Amino acid sequence: MTWESIAATKRQALNDSIPAAWVIPAAIFPPEDQLDVATFPQESGFFTKHELEITSTPASTILSHLASGSWTSEEVTKAFCKTAAAAKQLTNCLSEIFFDRAITQAKELDTYFQETGKTKGPFHGLPISMKDNFNLVGYDSAIGFTSLANNPATHNSIIVDLLLEAGAVLYCKTNVPTAMMIPETVNNLLGRTVNPKNRNLTTGGSTGGEAALIAFGGSRIGVGSDIGGSLRMPAACTGLFTIRPSSGRFPNFQSRACLEGQESVNGVAGPMAKTLEEIVLWASVIVSQKPWARDPKCSPIPWRSVEMKSNKSLKIGVLWNDGFVTPTPPVARALKDTVELLKTAGHEVITWAPTEHMEMLGLLGRLFLADGGKSVRKLLEPTGEPFRPEMKPYEEAKELSVYDLWQVHLSRNTLCKSYLDRWNDTGIDAILCPTTPYSSVESGKFAYAGYTCVFNLLDYPVVSFPCGIKTDKAIDTAYVNHQALNDMDAQIQNDYSAEAVHGMPVSLQLVGRKLEEESLLAMTDLILKALESR
Amino acid sequence: MTWESIAATKRQALNDSIPAAWVIPAAIFPPEDQLDVATFPQESGFFTKHELEITSTPASTILSHLASGSWTSEEVTKAFCKTAAAAKQLTNCLSEIFFDRAITQAKELDTYFQETGKTKGPFHGLPISMKDNFNLVGYDSAIGFTSLANNPATHNSIIVDLLLEAGAVLYCKTNVPTAMMIPETVNNLLGRTVNPKNRNLTTGGSTGGEAALIAFGGSRIGVGSDIGGSLRMPAACTGLFTIRPSSGRFPNFQSRACLEGQESVNGVAGPMAKTLEEIVLWASVIVSQKPWARDPKCSPIPWRSVEMKSNKSLKIGVLWNDGFVTPTPPVARALKDTVELLKTAGHEVITWAPTEHMEMLGLLGRLFLADGGKSVRKLLEPTGEPFRPEMKPYEEAKELSVYDLWQVHLSRNTLCKSYLDRWNDTGIDAILCPTTPYSSVESGKFAYAGYTCVFNLLDYPVVSFPCGIKTDKAIDTAYVNHQALNDMDAQIQNDYSAEAVHGMPVSLQLVGRKLEEESLLAMTDLILKALESR
Repeated sequence: MTWESIAATKRQALNDSIPAAWVIPAAIFPPEDQLDVATFPQESGFFTKHELEITSTPASTILSHLASGSWTSEEVTKAFCKTAAAAKQLTNCLSEIFFDRAITQAKELDTYFQETGKTKGPFHGLPISMKDNFNLVGYDSAIGFTSLANNPATHNSIIVDLLLEAGAVLYCKTNVPTAMMIPETVNNLLGRTVNPKNRNLTTGGSTGGEAALIAFGGSRIGVGSDIGGSLRMPAACTGLFTIRPSSGRFPNFQSRACLEGQESVNGVAGPMAKTLEEIVLWASVIVSQKPWARDPKCSPIPWRSVEMKSNKSLKIGVLWNDGFVTPTPPVARALKDTVELLKTAGHEVITWAPTEHMEMLGLLGRLFLADGGKSVRKLLEPTGEPFRPEMKPYEEAKELSVYDLWQVHLSRNTLCKSYLDRWNDTGIDAILCPTTPYSSVESGKFAYAGYTCVFNLLDYPVVSFPCGIKTDKAIDTAYVNHQALNDMDAQIQNDYSAEAVHGMPVSLQLVGRKLEEESLLAMTDLILKALESR
Repeated sequence: MTWESIAATKRQALNDSIPAAWVIPAAIFPPEDQLDVATFPQESGFFTKHELEITSTPASTILSHLASGSWTSEEVTKAFCKTAAAAKQLTNCLSEIFFDRAITQAKELDTYFQETGKTKGPFHGLPISMKDNFNLVGYDSAIGFTSLANNPATHNSIIVDLLLEAGAVLYCKTNVPTAMMIPETVNNLLGRTVNPKNRNLTTGGSTGGEAALIAFGGSRIGVGSDIGGSLRMPAACTGLFTIRPSSGRFPNFQSRACLEGQESVNGVAGPMAKTLEEIVLWASVIVSQKPWARDPKCSPIPWRSVEMKSNKSLKIGVLWNDGFVTPTPPVARALKDTVELLKTAGHEVITWAPTEHMEMLGLLGRLFLADGGKSVRKLLEPTGEPFRPEMKPYEEAKELSVYDLWQVHLSRNTLCKSYLDRWNDTGIDAILCPTTPYSSVESGKFAYAGYTCVFNLLDYPVVSFPCGIKTDKAIDTAYVNHQALNDMDAQIQNDYSAEAVHGMPVSLQLVGRKLEEESLLAMTDLILKALESR
């Protein structure tokens, strides 16, 4: 079989796995030129009032309904499956569909609850979606490669076992870019996932299928992963919350990676959701399951809830510009406006210089390409699948020697120490900065992951949150006479179109100290309170 | 200058730095054929009764005397400096000597105490020795290379800063093997350190200078490091206690490594001492200083004291033989006898199979040699210093490609997971096994580090402790008709001489779960209680 025929067969099988009742009728199927399909659930009439009630209810409330018996897992699961099916048809966000399995599991949970009066765990009956790279026995984890299609997993990822043991219902996996190393979601196997808020725009990557699904309403909590911004960039493109933890906090073992065995920058798993509260819920449940007892990469650090007084004053370092790419106008405005509100709320704000950022970016490029693209090439070769144009750096990479890799580690360690020293010297509690230079961007134009990936190198935990400001084409016009920092900056400002991204939410990152996720989430909550007036 | 002249000059300078009053007079200088010099302090008449009282007092009691003002840091420091000077003359254990600096520091601490009535920190006035690789401004960290001699450090290691801030007095650094990658202590710069209990025997390596110093009485607590057994093997050769922590627990940043930037197996710092209590003291003080606030590689895990009931029953997996090298007769006897006492004390003992050990050893060899010996070669070349015969594997190594290194990581991770699963499945609390196949061995014959290094690959914390049994030439005769497992095993059994190691203590390892040092130390204490009848 050619790679093209494998892809065609896989796409057809995926479409065929949607039950006929959940195929959107032609009469209400949004036309291709309808950009915003996030409104579809509420406006199409395709869903019942109760289905809409379920999918718009935060996870903790759904769990209460399930635990009190007022909702069954079956009805909740079906509502999310149906909505996910619609999301798939309108954004191409799914990579694996197993609604039957989910409904069977939901019914078993309902029976258990009816017979015992007990829930099976803290996620009893709640559907949770996950990115394609997490292994579930019996389903592919193809991460966009035709060579990995039709190769079902024979073991679960540890996080999958934990979710199942906590009572979560698994119902679908979500699309990713080839190798999960492109900041958009596009691959030769399943094609492109688009942004449900504006289908001309990218949903970001690599956890982009998940972002599209959740933003559409097809999931409350999804699990993704992040090695250079793969949770945060899609969350930012779609206006969602996420946390990239420090490595060793949430389990990421036995999941599919592309650069397998690459450990100079550790990929991590994390949640994505519409609210911060759902992020905290997921994190606390997973850590309470003691992932370190099963994942040899996890550290035995229990969940340490942090209470922060509502009048606590934080000292925040603001990174206005990383010195390489200037945030586009809506992002710059959102950051400025946010800082003003933080000051008003009594927080201290200082400017945080990007002293080490350029050097860190240089090292990251070397680390991801250190095998000369061999890992990617070995996944393309079996089916003769070509390198996608976005993967050109991997096609052209030269392999490092191990000695040279070790020298890169040394440089990285020096930069990490310097960053930590600056943190201590200034006495900041957190860094506030853009998640990306964009409030999303047209598909094919997402060119820069530098605002996220430096924190992967540092291994600091980072929350990305929608700050409440949306692009306004009347205000956020392109910079006049922008003094470009370099060709990349020039290209990004040149590509910027206020018209194209009108109405798109802007997200910011809050960065905490390594392995102090609880404190970071508490600070984020405090900051959201300061922004409530929006 | 040739490498030989650099070495000669460095050795001469080191000898010259011993004050005349502390040069052992010819009349009482032990003859070269006197093997046991550990008796020298008590028996030579070279030390005053008070000096002997000080150096034989455990650290916590010394600290009490200092905190009450009954002893001054100056008198304590001078006692340890003088004893260290003697140890140097009899075992060649020191690499850097700065007694003047120490005495000045001690006087300042005494003045501070006299003026304020307060101690400067938890180690106020206590001399602490350290391995050559820890950087102290103004002194070499040559780790046995002539090219690194006369190249004083321009910054302190983080652990050195913490020790100084805690009030410790630094007075000397201790010898290591070339590159710290030989299980004996010998190098072209300073020569060989011998075992003070028997100068025909090795003191082990690479923290061997430290082991010789402490066993002699020239230090109560020393700081060393371990990447394959470098704390545990010397502690075992000299009958001392040590803990190899999981990486990220104690700071090891800004210290000299040889394979700089190698992070597939992390080197770690740890304490060495004559008692378990001193190990716990050091660990709790260091962690209480929050090393993670300064060392980007440390994890924010506070010291969590573990109380264990004296009648608690542990489930212990005993590794009798790692399947590659059979422990020599005294070690096998000590392990068997220890297991009997543990059973008598109510502990449950099961056999722990070395299922993954051979594969782990294969991977370790590949990882340490992954740069094709370049890191070592680059330190030898500037002075034309030759590879020592013990370093032959580094001379002959072929460099791995980064892709191949990543595959080794994958294999390692699979083995780590398998080991953890076995641990969970059997429900053990700890593993008990030999520290080395030897109760020390003649210099030049220490051939196998396999019992220690597998736990570096796993990153489990390990205590090595003297179990109370000593080699008895009447009992521990060589195996008759030993069925050698392989050439290495044959060589080691063939090299074994009960006569040569008569009277030498045997140490065992207790292995705990990753990053659970407190629990491991509490279990060790429990086990020592079970062995008290010895």
